[in-house]
Amino acid sequence: MAEFTPDPAFITTSAAVGDLALCHIRLQLDARYPWLVLIPRQAGLREIEDLSAADRIALIEETVRAGSAVRAVAEALGLSVDKLNVGALGNVTPQLHVHVLGRRAGDPAWPGPVWGHSAGDSFNPATLATAVAAARIALGL
Amino acid sequence: MAEFTPDPAFITTSAAVGDLALCHIRLQLDARYPWLVLIPRQAGLREIEDLSAADRIALIEETVRAGSAVRAVAEALGLSVDKLNVGALGNVTPQLHVHVLGRRAGDPAWPGPVWGHSAGDSFNPATLATAVAAARIALGL
Repeated sequence: MAEFTPDPAFITTSAAVGDLALCHIRLQLDARYPWLVLIPRQAGLREIEDLSAADRIALIEETVRAGSAVRAVAEALGLSVDKLNVGALGNVTPQLHVHVLGRRAGDPAWPGPVWGHSAGDSFNPATLATAVAAARIALGL
Repeated sequence: MAEFTPDPAFITTSAAVGDLALCHIRLQLDARYPWLVLIPRQAGLREIEDLSAADRIALIEETVRAGSAVRAVAEALGLSVDKLNVGALGNVTPQLHVHVLGRRAGDPAWPGPVWGHSAGDSFNPATLATAVAAARIALGL
């Protein structure tokens, strides 16, 4: 059985947060949004239907936990969250992954989707460390 | 307890397909994509976290069933599906709902998201009936 590794595209666009039972969790490198990416840690997945029924339950539970962590990251960054956005697209990077991010009215892409909207704002190192720490605490990592 | 009714925005943009155990299922009125919308049939929901744990399991199972139905709708419409896209956004219509749709390389919005991309192409009545019938059969409705 092939070993899981995150697609290289995630390494350049996000920072590792840690691993839950199913998913590898990453923080998207865009300081404009509190934004986590969940990547189920199994090789060869493309669609949610490729997961077992038990792993699909884990995926939705980890998605909800990621929503709480996104709120914690937002608080640490001084951002508000008016609406969570959850998306599994994969048109560019087909390895199965779920975006969970916080939106606020008037944010750069509001009310459209963030995916493909515009280049991200990079974090300064201290703010990135704050965001990752907030995510880790919220996820119990 | 308030009664569930779909937000009026869904009535103008989609056609009723039927009800599963948790969700009211609708077909998006855009002939360019095989596209279903799942609306959990409970009043007052905005986020996935607002569902009980049992209903979250139902939501992800109905999402997977909707993916199969999207493939059936695509076949009925003569469209291919290279990738499923699943999204719960709600920035415009905050009532909790999940989009499940089929994407093909080179479709009008490819590889970006469909939400907010461009106005839909309307169905002719016979094609719409074909699409709804394919969705109902695939969902066991």
